[in-house]
Formats: sequence, structure tokens, C-alpha cells
Amino acid sequence: MTDLVTMGHAARTASYTLGTLTTAQKDAALLAIADEIEAQAATVLAQNALDIADARAKGTVEALLDRLLLNERRVAGLAADTRKVAALPDPVGEEIEGRVLPNGIRLSRRRIPIGVLGVIYEARPNVTIDIATLSLKTGNAVILRGGSETLRSNLALVAVIQAALAKVGLPQAAVQYIENPDRALVAELLRLDKYVDMIIPRGGAGLHRLCREQSTIPVITGGIGICHLYVDASADLERAIPVIENAKVQRPSVCNALDTLLVHRHVAAEFLPKVAARLTQSGVTLRATPDAMAILAKDAGGATVLPAGPDDFDQEWLSLVLGVKLVDSVDEAIAHIRAHSTEHSDGILTNDWGNATHFVNAINSAAVFVNASTRFNDGGQFGLGAEVAVSTQKLHARGPMGLEALTTYKWVAIGDMHIRP
Amino acid sequence: MTDLVTMGHAARTASYTLGTLTTAQKDAALLAIADEIEAQAATVLAQNALDIADARAKGTVEALLDRLLLNERRVAGLAADTRKVAALPDPVGEEIEGRVLPNGIRLSRRRIPIGVLGVIYEARPNVTIDIATLSLKTGNAVILRGGSETLRSNLALVAVIQAALAKVGLPQAAVQYIENPDRALVAELLRLDKYVDMIIPRGGAGLHRLCREQSTIPVITGGIGICHLYVDASADLERAIPVIENAKVQRPSVCNALDTLLVHRHVAAEFLPKVAARLTQSGVTLRATPDAMAILAKDAGGATVLPAGPDDFDQEWLSLVLGVKLVDSVDEAIAHIRAHSTEHSDGILTNDWGNATHFVNAINSAAVFVNASTRFNDGGQFGLGAEVAVSTQKLHARGPMGLEALTTYKWVAIGDMHIRP
Repeated sequence: MTDLVTMGHAARTASYTLGTLTTAQKDAALLAIADEIEAQAATVLAQNALDIADARAKGTVEALLDRLLLNERRVAGLAADTRKVAALPDPVGEEIEGRVLPNGIRLSRRRIPIGVLGVIYEARPNVTIDIATLSLKTGNAVILRGGSETLRSNLALVAVIQAALAKVGLPQAAVQYIENPDRALVAELLRLDKYVDMIIPRGGAGLHRLCREQSTIPVITGGIGICHLYVDASADLERAIPVIENAKVQRPSVCNALDTLLVHRHVAAEFLPKVAARLTQSGVTLRATPDAMAILAKDAGGATVLPAGPDDFDQEWLSLVLGVKLVDSVDEAIAHIRAHSTEHSDGILTNDWGNATHFVNAINSAAVFVNASTRFNDGGQFGLGAEVAVSTQKLHARGPMGLEALTTYKWVAIGDMHIRP
Repeated sequence: MTDLVTMGHAARTASYTLGTLTTAQKDAALLAIADEIEAQAATVLAQNALDIADARAKGTVEALLDRLLLNERRVAGLAADTRKVAALPDPVGEEIEGRVLPNGIRLSRRRIPIGVLGVIYEARPNVTIDIATLSLKTGNAVILRGGSETLRSNLALVAVIQAALAKVGLPQAAVQYIENPDRALVAELLRLDKYVDMIIPRGGAGLHRLCREQSTIPVITGGIGICHLYVDASADLERAIPVIENAKVQRPSVCNALDTLLVHRHVAAEFLPKVAARLTQSGVTLRATPDAMAILAKDAGGATVLPAGPDDFDQEWLSLVLGVKLVDSVDEAIAHIRAHSTEHSDGILTNDWGNATHFVNAINSAAVFVNASTRFNDGGQFGLGAEVAVSTQKLHARGPMGLEALTTYKWVAIGDMHIRP
């Protein structure tokens, strides 16, 4: 029987140890984990092979099998990634602000770990190492719950982590894994507010919704992107085409890929056939409004164009489909984005200073782009060194979450036997 | 019928207007509200008199009646407070960080309003003005739900605010009030995640629990303080006594008041009779562990001392009661605080540099004090200019929440038709 209260209590206790470690101690633990990954590569690969065999027997498609798969190169990559996390700057301990109050009390805000994290994720086994190492780097304990397809791989990786933690004298409960596949345990984890401080779901819209609905613990939601680019009448149309192509086709299955193209009516007749011709080279299908259909009916550049259905502008396509709509103005583009965006990644392609400024001021998505692909909304691209998740909510963290998003702060007030008047 | 979806939609639409106002426009609105409060003071007082009459008829005790009461001086105070909010610096628009990425994209994080706030609060009518003005200052729309005891007062104040908003040409839906007393509407508000970005409960533990349990919107919880002071063996005992007195008796009904006094065993025989003698002057009753009882049995300085019951160290007393426990070391004090604190306000009274450092590093409460009263954990005392709430959770904001806690940020990326390689 999985006793989450026992796990939670152990995680909380471990978090007290982790929270007062020096950066050197945490980095030593991470390097020990990297070494252990290499030392136990054969065991990890053997367990992964069992997962893969099961998945294949169940008829899992090759594309998904590839996501589940570990091989020698990928395991070496896990060790290398762990060493990279060790090399990142440690945000814990930073004095965010400090001053002397008028009464002489010295007041500061000091960055501290959040405490205990609960992370629920889907198939890929590398997330196990990713989240565990980022949690340790920031002094947090973590309770992991991964997808059942890679259960044996995940357990092997957690065993590697715990073995390394033991070698450097740190509590193994710093990284725990909910092994029992019973889904009721997810619901229980979401209500373990006595011990868990933050829930991070890494998966689809259904998982995020489940967490928001059921959790009594603060949840970081995000990762769902209905992303827009608006082509202004002033845009450099030739140069706009590769940006749209990049946003749509570079990696269509991810959350910062483009979903809807808004085009100013004045340039639509010139622009739509060109962009359609380019996108069709990558196999993109368009879903267009009637006025855009009318233009593309004359010249679609060989592209497949279907009429946009009533819900097509509320779709995160995650595939080679792109909604196309004409607008009369930047304000109509803003209104469309406000009505349909998930506030993940939205941008304007323009050469008009006023329109760019107006768009950036009016659109409050997690990342707002001017003359750049939505694909840049990413912790690595934004220089954060690591990415825990991409948040689209308003509290705590927005957009790509780096190490800092795994920390909070406390106020420290130093007096000389001060009393409040 | 109260249609929360309509209210939510109107609030969201209003938030788009509020989010792009200049500081001057927002401050003009606040000054108009202050003027309107003064102009309509008689109406507000008449409505409040009806609330007070009803409350008195229901047998409400005088202390609570005083919390509900408005009079000419208090209404003048509401106008003055509103002008103070207008005079505060506006956090919106701040560039939190900005740099040029290696690829030439100019990346910054810009502070923006959260959007739409939902605030659920108890009796005092001044909270209506307080929250509405802080929301407007930060460009947020707000949906208010106050206590039924002051419904007419709250509605009169919201009418004043909406009249002022209309005068300056701003949408009245910026500040809305749920008038229908049906409690089902609270549950509905907590699930209005399509339109509301953050829930702030201002009330007792039951309200906070309800919000955590039922909300699909991020909730700021806090306001519940089981607060500790630890008297180290090295403390200046004479000077420690007024600090403990201040923490316990200056305003015992609030969340940063002292609940548990931990005393190092080495100084207990000398210290406890003195502190008990001082506290009894203010009517404090002690709840002591057996070893503390034994000392106080010889000399309690006239204080009433009862044996501490099994749950007494998990009580937020909110009254003139103080738990007393002896400990053998700073580590035992830390362990007790970790087990029993709500992480609101905890402190050490010491003259030992090592123990103070150890305590501050180990205790991660929202505010940690060295040689100062826990009563300082307050937005005004910490120089924030305003206090929205006191958070004890780990995400978004901790401790006193000033205007900045009503904001979030967006990433703004300015390129020159950049594509991701």
C-alpha cells in the first residue's frame, strides 16, 4: 500500500535538510547523481527495454515509442544534463531587497526553497531526471508521479538518484516516486496540502484541468498554447513568411507552435497565396474564414484549404494545421486574441511603431512577440538555463519557469528588542 | 438573479481598459472616488445605520458592532485613505529585467495587472474601499463579496465608487459587488476561472479552507498565525519582557499576535516568574507544560497558569492566552516551531550570533524576527504603503502583500523577423 502521508512527512523532513545545504553540497549531490546515471546505465536501459517491449505489445505507435525510448546516447545525455544543472547559479539565499526601516529594524527579503513539490507528468522518462535535479538544485524535496508507460524506467532512475543521495549523505526522501499506478493516488496527492507546497502538472489540458479542479495545493498551470501571429498591413511581407513558417512547422507538436494566423485585409490578397504556397511545402493544411477562402480560391499556391469550423479558432492544433482569419485593424486582431488565446505566446509582424506599441501594451499573454517567431517562448531560448514548465497563469510565475520559479522568499527582520508602538 | 458569468465577462472587459490606463488616469479616478465618498457621506451613513440597527436587533455584541460601524470620522478616513492610495507609486509598467539575447532579440519582463480579482471578506465595510482602491491603483478589475452584516453599507460604498468611475469615464464594471446573499454564489465565484485570475479570502480559517477546497482559481491564503517567540539562554532577559508583552497584548485579536512562548530551560527559573508577573498586568492567562508549571507553581507573579492541553500549541489564540513551553536548545525550539507554526511570524530573542543565524536559516516562516516583536509583520510596518492581505503560502507572495502582489508580468520579445534555428 502506498502511504502518501508517510511519503509527504518524509519529504517535508527532507526539505528541512535540503533547505539549509550550501550550494557546494547540492552541486556535489548532483554530480554524484550524474556519475551514478553513468554507472548504472545498463540497469536503466534494461528496465526501459521492458517498458518499450510492453508498449510495443500494446500497439503503441512508433512516434510515441521514440518518446519513451532510452538508449546509450540518451542516458549519457541525462548525465550531461545533470552536470549542466550543477553548473547553474543557485538562486537560493539571494537577498531580494534589504533596507533599514525608520525605526532601525533591518528588513530584508531572502530567497528560499518552496519546500516540497508534487510533479505529475506524462510519458518521457527524461522528465524524471530533469525535475529531480532542478528540485535538488533549489533545495526542494519532490514527490514524482510519472506516466505508467515508463514506470520501470522511472523507478530505475529514481533508484539511481536515491543511491547517489545516500552516497553523499543526503536523505533519500528528497526524491520520492509514487509507484502504485492507482489513479486515486493522484487525487490524494492533490490534497496533501499539509506536506506539499506546489503542484506542477506536465501534460495535456485534461491533466491541468484535473489539477485545478481537485487540488487544495497551489497548482502551476500552463503548457497549453493557442498561439497567434498578426500580420499587420505595414509588415515586411517577404520576411514575414519565414517567421510564420518557423512558428508553424519547426515543431508543430509543442505548445508554442502557431495555431492562428491573423492577416490585415489590405495585404491579404497579396500575402495569403504566398504564405500558403510556402506552408504547403511542409504539409500544412489551412482552415480559413470565408473572406480568406475567397482569396485562396483564386490562388492557394497548391495548399489544401478548408473552411474554418466554428471551434477552429479555439483549437491548439499540435499538428500541421493553421487557422487563417482576416481582420480590419490591429484592434480587431487584439480583440480576436483576447477572445481566443490561452495567453501563452502571441505576436505581431509589423513595421509600424504605433501598432507594435499598441499591440504590446494591449496583449498580456505570458510572452508577447514583435517580429519574431512564437517558438522562442522557451526557457532555453530566453536564457534561463533550465525550464521547469511554461506557465500561462497569472500568479507566481509566467512563461518559461527557470530555477527562480522553484523558490519563494521570507522576510527577515533584525531588531534590538523592538516593540511596535 | 445574480448572473456571475455576466459579471465576470464585464469585469474581464473592464480589465482591458484598466490595464492600459496611465498612472495619472488611475490616480484621477481614485481622487474622484475620495471626493464622491465625502459628497455622499450622508447616504453611506444612513445605510450603515440600517445595518447597525439590524445587527443590534440580532443581539450582536458591542465589540463587533464597533467593527461594523461607520461614523463621520471614519467616512472621512475612507476618503483620506483613498487619497493615500492615489499618492502611492504605481508598480504597473515596471521593466523587471531587460537584456539582449545572443541572437539579437530584445527581451524584457514587464509588470502588468493580474486582471480580475475576486475578494471575499468579512464584516468591516472599510475593506470595500480598501480593496477597490488598491485594485484600481494596480489596473485590476475586482468582484467583491462582503459579509451580510454590512450589505447595505457595502452597496452604498460600491455605488459611490461606480458613480466616481462614471464621472471620470471609466467602466463601472471595474468594481462590482455580489449583492445576493446566497452562499452558493461564493462557490460559483470560486469556479469562475474563465474570468477571475486570483481569489483573496479575508477572513477566518474556515473561509480560507473553503477557498482552498473549492476554488479552481489560484487562492492567496494566509492571515492565520500561530506565532512563536523563542527566548534563548543568551537573551537579555530584562529587555525580552517588553517584547513578549508587546507581541502578546498590544492587539491580541490579530494574526501576528504571539501564541506560544518557548523558553530555554537554563533561564526558565529566573525568567518565567518575571514575564508572568508582567503579562498578568494585562490579563494574560498562561497555558504551560508541566516543567514550566513546576517553576510557576513556586512564583507565578500573580498570573493565572493552567496546564497546557494536548492541542494548546496548535491554537491561534486571538485572545489574552499564551502557551508556554521549555526547550533544551535552539534546535528543539526550531523543531517545535516547524511542527506547530502556520509559518506566519516567528522569532528568536537572543544575544548569541550563532543561534540567531541558525534560527533565521532554519525557520522559513513568512516573517522571521530576531529581537523584535512579531507584531511588526504588517504591510504598514514593513513600509509597503498598503496591505492587501498577509500571505502564509509559498507561491506568488509571502507575508504582507503590497501593491506589487496585485501584479504579474509578461515577457516582451522584440525581434527583426527572427526565427528559431
